[in-house]
Amino acid sequence: MDAEATFLALALILLSARILGETAAWLKAPPVMGEMLAGILLGPSLLGIVELNDIIYTLAEIGLILLLFEVGLDTDLSKLSQQRYKASVVALGSFIAPFIGGFALSYWVFDLSLLVSMFIGGTLTATSIGVTVRVLRDLKRHQSPEAQVVVGAAVLDDILGIILLALLYEFATQGGVNLINTGKVILFILIFMAIAPILAKFIALSIGRFHHLSSIPGLIPTTIVSLILLFAWLAHAAGAPALLGGFAAGLALSRRFFLPFGAALRLPSNEDFCAKIHVSMQPIIQLFTPVFFVMVGLSLNLHEIDWTSPSIFLMAGLFITIAMLSKLTGAFLIRESLHFRWAVGLSMIPRAEVGLIFAELGRLSGVFNHEVYAVMVLTIAVTTVLPPFMLKWFYKQYGSKLDRRAF
Amino acid sequence: MDAEATFLALALILLSARILGETAAWLKAPPVMGEMLAGILLGPSLLGIVELNDIIYTLAEIGLILLLFEVGLDTDLSKLSQQRYKASVVALGSFIAPFIGGFALSYWVFDLSLLVSMFIGGTLTATSIGVTVRVLRDLKRHQSPEAQVVVGAAVLDDILGIILLALLYEFATQGGVNLINTGKVILFILIFMAIAPILAKFIALSIGRFHHLSSIPGLIPTTIVSLILLFAWLAHAAGAPALLGGFAAGLALSRRFFLPFGAALRLPSNEDFCAKIHVSMQPIIQLFTPVFFVMVGLSLNLHEIDWTSPSIFLMAGLFITIAMLSKLTGAFLIRESLHFRWAVGLSMIPRAEVGLIFAELGRLSGVFNHEVYAVMVLTIAVTTVLPPFMLKWFYKQYGSKLDRRAF
Repeated sequence: MDAEATFLALALILLSARILGETAAWLKAPPVMGEMLAGILLGPSLLGIVELNDIIYTLAEIGLILLLFEVGLDTDLSKLSQQRYKASVVALGSFIAPFIGGFALSYWVFDLSLLVSMFIGGTLTATSIGVTVRVLRDLKRHQSPEAQVVVGAAVLDDILGIILLALLYEFATQGGVNLINTGKVILFILIFMAIAPILAKFIALSIGRFHHLSSIPGLIPTTIVSLILLFAWLAHAAGAPALLGGFAAGLALSRRFFLPFGAALRLPSNEDFCAKIHVSMQPIIQLFTPVFFVMVGLSLNLHEIDWTSPSIFLMAGLFITIAMLSKLTGAFLIRESLHFRWAVGLSMIPRAEVGLIFAELGRLSGVFNHEVYAVMVLTIAVTTVLPPFMLKWFYKQYGSKLDRRAF
Repeated sequence: MDAEATFLALALILLSARILGETAAWLKAPPVMGEMLAGILLGPSLLGIVELNDIIYTLAEIGLILLLFEVGLDTDLSKLSQQRYKASVVALGSFIAPFIGGFALSYWVFDLSLLVSMFIGGTLTATSIGVTVRVLRDLKRHQSPEAQVVVGAAVLDDILGIILLALLYEFATQGGVNLINTGKVILFILIFMAIAPILAKFIALSIGRFHHLSSIPGLIPTTIVSLILLFAWLAHAAGAPALLGGFAAGLALSRRFFLPFGAALRLPSNEDFCAKIHVSMQPIIQLFTPVFFVMVGLSLNLHEIDWTSPSIFLMAGLFITIAMLSKLTGAFLIRESLHFRWAVGLSMIPRAEVGLIFAELGRLSGVFNHEVYAVMVLTIAVTTVLPPFMLKWFYKQYGSKLDRRAF
C-alpha cells in the first residue's frame, strides 16, 4: 500500500488544476477547461506522470457527488418542480435523438453491426451534468430558470443512461433483455427519488437538533458528508447513479425545501444551521471537485487515436455533428424563447465521463474495436471541450436577453 | 472499481466515530477512545462490515498528516526550539529503554531468537503521536509546555522508529546491515528537517500574495492541501515518516514562525491570510482525522488472540508492564517538576498504528509466529487504550499544579 505515491499524485492534480484553471480564467476561457486540460497534461495523453487508480477515481466520484450536493443545496425544489415538465421533455429529447442519430449513422451509413450501433447510440446519449453545472456556475447562471431545466434534464438523462447501459450490457452478454429486471430497477429508482429527500431532510433536522448537544468539534462536516455518501450509496443500490444521492441530500438541506408532489407541508428549518453547513461544506466541496475534472482529462488517452487515418476523422466529424445537433433536439421541443432553448440545448452537449463509461464498457466487452473506440473517444473529447466555450460565448452575446425574461 | 462500496464504508466510519466519540465524551471518557472503538466495532474484531482497503487507508493517512499539520499550525517554533533539548532526551529515553526492555524480556526470559527479540524491541519503541495529540487537544492542553516537549519527542521517536524499522527489515531479509545506506537516510532526513519549513513558508507566502489575483473560488483549500501532501511525499522520499511533512507545512504556516537555528529573521506574515487558512482548513481536518482513529481500530483484529491460552496473558502482561514503564524513562531523565515528568511520560505510552506497522511487518516477514504476533497486538491494544484514560485522570487530579508552573 503505497499511500505516499497517491499523495504526490493528488498534490499534482490539485496544483495543476489550480494553475491551469486560473490561467484559463485569465485567458477568458472557462476554468473547467483548464482543469480538464490538467488531466490531459498529467495523464497518458501527454506526460504520463499520474496514473488513474482506485483512490483517485473514488475521490473524483466524491467530488462529483459533492458538486451535485451543492447544486441541490442551491436548488429551489418548488422551482425545479415547476420546471419538471420542461426538464422531462428536454431529457427525453436529448436522450432519444442522439441514440437514434448515433444508431442510424452507425448501422446504415457505416454498416456496423446491430450491437455496435446500439452501443454507439448509447455512448452519444450521455450528458455530463458535472461539466455543464460547473460552466453555468462559473458564469454565475446556475440559479437561472434555464439552469433549473438543465439540471433536472441532466439528472433524468443520467438515470435513463444508467438504465440503457444496463440493458445494453445484458443484451451484449446474455443475448437478450429481461424486462422484469428493468422494471424493477425503474421502480427502485422511483421509490428512491420519492423517499430520499424526505428521509434526508429528517436526518438533517435531527443533526440540527443534536448540534447543541455535541461536545467534539466537527459535527457538521462529518455528519453531512456521511449523509451525502450514504445517499450516494443508497442511490447506487437502487440502481440509480450515485450522484443522484448527492443531489437528493443537497435538496433536503436547501433553505427552500418543499416536500415533493406539491405538498405544502413546510418542515421547520433552521437558518443558522443552514449557514453553518454552507461555511463548513464549502472548503470540502472546493477541495474535491477539481479532482473530478482532472480525472475526466486523465481518463482520456489521446494516443489511442490513430491521428494518421483520414477515415477516423471523417467518421468522428460525422459523429460529432450528429452528437451536437441531436442534443439540441430536446431543448427545441419546449415552449420557450429561442435564446432559452439555445442555452438549454448547448448545456446538454457535454458528454465527458458518462460517455467515456459507455465507450469503456463497449471496449471491455469487445463490442467496440480499436477504430470505433478511438472515434468515440474523439467524439467525447470534442463534445466535452467545445460546449464550455460555446456557452461562454453564448452568454456573453445573449445573456442579457435571457435576464430580461419574466420568471 | 466499486467506488460505491467505499462510500458506504466511509459513511459508516464517519457516523460511528461521531456517535461513539460523542458517547465517550458524554461518559467523560476521551472521545478518541470512542473513535478507536468504532473501528473495533466495524472491523474484523466484531461486526466485520468494514474492510480496511487502500482507499480508507490512504484517507486515514491523510487524516493523520492533517492532524500533524494542525499541530504544526498551533506550534510556536521558538517554544519548540527552546524545548528541543528536553524533547531529544525524552525521545531517546523512550526509544532506547523500550527497545532494551522488550529485547531483554524476549531474549533472556522467553528465550526467543535474536531477530524476533529485536523486532519485539522495535515494536515497543513506537509512539503514536496521533493518539497523544488528540488526547491533549481534547483536554485543551495541546499548547502547554509539556505538550511541546511531547510533540517534539514523538516526532523524533517516529523518525528513530522508521530508521530502526528499515535496519531491522534489512537485517531480516539480507542478514546484515549496510551502515552507509542508513547514514544516507539520516542525512536526507536532517536536510528535509532543515529545509522543509523554510521552503513551505516561501510557498505559503507566494500563495498569500497570489490570493488577490485568484478568480476561481477554493484557492486556500486546494493549494494548502496540495502543499501538505507534497511535503508529506517529500518527507517520505527523504526516508522520514510522511506525517513529518504535514508537521513542517503546519509549522511554516503558523503565525509565529521563526526560521530555525534561532535566526532572528522574521518573514513578513499576513494575519488575515492565516485566519482564512484556519477557517478553510478546519472542516477538512475535522473530516479526515476521525478516519485515522477508526482505522487504528479497524486494523486491530482481536480474534487473532487466543483468549483461552494463559501463557499469552502472562507474556502480554509482562510486555505491557515493560512497555509502559520503559516509556516513562525518557520523561524522568529531564529536569522538570514531578508532575511535568508524569504528564510527558504518560503521553509517550500510546503505540497504536506505529506499533501495529512493526508487528505487521514482523508477521509478514515471518519473524513473528502467531503467538508472538497475538501478544504484540494485545500489548499494543492495551497501551493504546489505557493512556487516554490515564492522562484524563492525571490532568483532572494534577492539571492545576502544572498550570501554576512558570514558563
